[in-house]
Amino acid sequence: MCSAAISDLELATRMADAARAAILPYFRQSGLAAQNKLSAGFDPVTAADRAGEEVMRQLLALHRPEDGILGEEFENVAGSSGRVWVLDPIDGTRGFISGTPTWGVLIALAEEDRGPVLGVIDQPYIGERFIGAAGQAYMQGPLGEMRLATRPTDTLSDAIVFTTFPEVGSPQEQAGFQAVARQAKLTRYGMDCYAYALVASGQVDLVIEAGLNAYDIQAPIAVIEAAGGIVTDWSGGPAHNGGRAVAAATPALHDAALAILRDFA
Amino acid sequence: MCSAAISDLELATRMADAARAAILPYFRQSGLAAQNKLSAGFDPVTAADRAGEEVMRQLLALHRPEDGILGEEFENVAGSSGRVWVLDPIDGTRGFISGTPTWGVLIALAEEDRGPVLGVIDQPYIGERFIGAAGQAYMQGPLGEMRLATRPTDTLSDAIVFTTFPEVGSPQEQAGFQAVARQAKLTRYGMDCYAYALVASGQVDLVIEAGLNAYDIQAPIAVIEAAGGIVTDWSGGPAHNGGRAVAAATPALHDAALAILRDFA
Repeated sequence: MCSAAISDLELATRMADAARAAILPYFRQSGLAAQNKLSAGFDPVTAADRAGEEVMRQLLALHRPEDGILGEEFENVAGSSGRVWVLDPIDGTRGFISGTPTWGVLIALAEEDRGPVLGVIDQPYIGERFIGAAGQAYMQGPLGEMRLATRPTDTLSDAIVFTTFPEVGSPQEQAGFQAVARQAKLTRYGMDCYAYALVASGQVDLVIEAGLNAYDIQAPIAVIEAAGGIVTDWSGGPAHNGGRAVAAATPALHDAALAILRDFA
Repeated sequence: MCSAAISDLELATRMADAARAAILPYFRQSGLAAQNKLSAGFDPVTAADRAGEEVMRQLLALHRPEDGILGEEFENVAGSSGRVWVLDPIDGTRGFISGTPTWGVLIALAEEDRGPVLGVIDQPYIGERFIGAAGQAYMQGPLGEMRLATRPTDTLSDAIVFTTFPEVGSPQEQAGFQAVARQAKLTRYGMDCYAYALVASGQVDLVIEAGLNAYDIQAPIAVIEAAGGIVTDWSGGPAHNGGRAVAAATPALHDAALAILRDFA
């Protein structure tokens, strides 16, 4: 039993390294078998997705056999510790199969009573890693290592806002997003987890999404909160179970967004 | 006079290196002064944009004083050779000011009677470079160097289609894009020049845009054509003067898109 020998942060880092190595060889390779997970939609699962989650689960079985696991690709593991590792080996599978570089590996550690307390947003192709834990947030990337901090944007008219798809979710959810976006300085699309990393980095101010799974949002929550931002659902409640999420650089901006989104929640 | 000593391709590569070094220090730095070039819209010009174009123009003044220059940031230079270098130091300025990594440096060489014959799509932050010239296309990046070739997608129902903004251009242009996108397998947004690089890489199949400037599209044309694809305006005519563009992996897919887009051109 090795659990005393390695910290949660070190383990999360090793898991991200392992997932990166497992997934990257599949990126932009032809013959990538994209199965359709949902018959109604287009939600491809690739061999890469499974390979990435398997290596992370192997490290957890070795170092944290007492913890639970919630992952995108395989069965939940019920733990005995009250702690759960939440894994999304490829966040942004549509981007992945399109060859775009901003898909990411998401790793979070959640505590039963507190939600996510540690998060990693890893960018294997670009070689960036955004980490938040214990009130500290930092990133490693092509330009070196730097501290992450949200920026002091307090009003929608000064805000850059992101969502992944213009349709956002249901027609009502789309209308909610658009009501906020109309008041923003600039609206951008298409980044999946990368948009949350940009909030934590102080580059953008607001991300609004719907239809999320728990494994899509828990790592972003931990990183953004450690960088000084705030993430909730559209009613101001916890977002870590998925569904609708709004991530904001400041409490004032979060309030301004919620004042609009609440009518659409 | 050094023009005999350096090939066009070597010169374009040196220009891309110089622009990369000039622009990258500004990326994600706070205090970036985004001026509004158009009073009506949000089209920021940054010190980075000007610094990047200046170093490219210095190299051209040194090595190709007889060639013309068409750049985004400074006055046109009329040459005497019938050749024009077409420069966009930061394609995707909205992405740049949002901290997203896929903005690029675009360099093309156009001949008076043939349009663009050489193109470079450089990705300074990611460390990728897509090059097309003389029927050869290749890329250099984090996973090494590889040949670029479009993939054999012949039908819209098998195609991944990209555009940068959901609004595309005018309401009519948006309707044209949507008429094509409705028949496609997958629609994605927000990549600027990167989407064209993905067509050349055989990762996606179709890019449809409107409201382009000549310096937005000439490098993509050269790279995609060298990789086996086809780029025209929405009526099938030349796209290198800007406006509406459709870039396709194959002639059959191009025909299928044009059959729809012509009604909206």
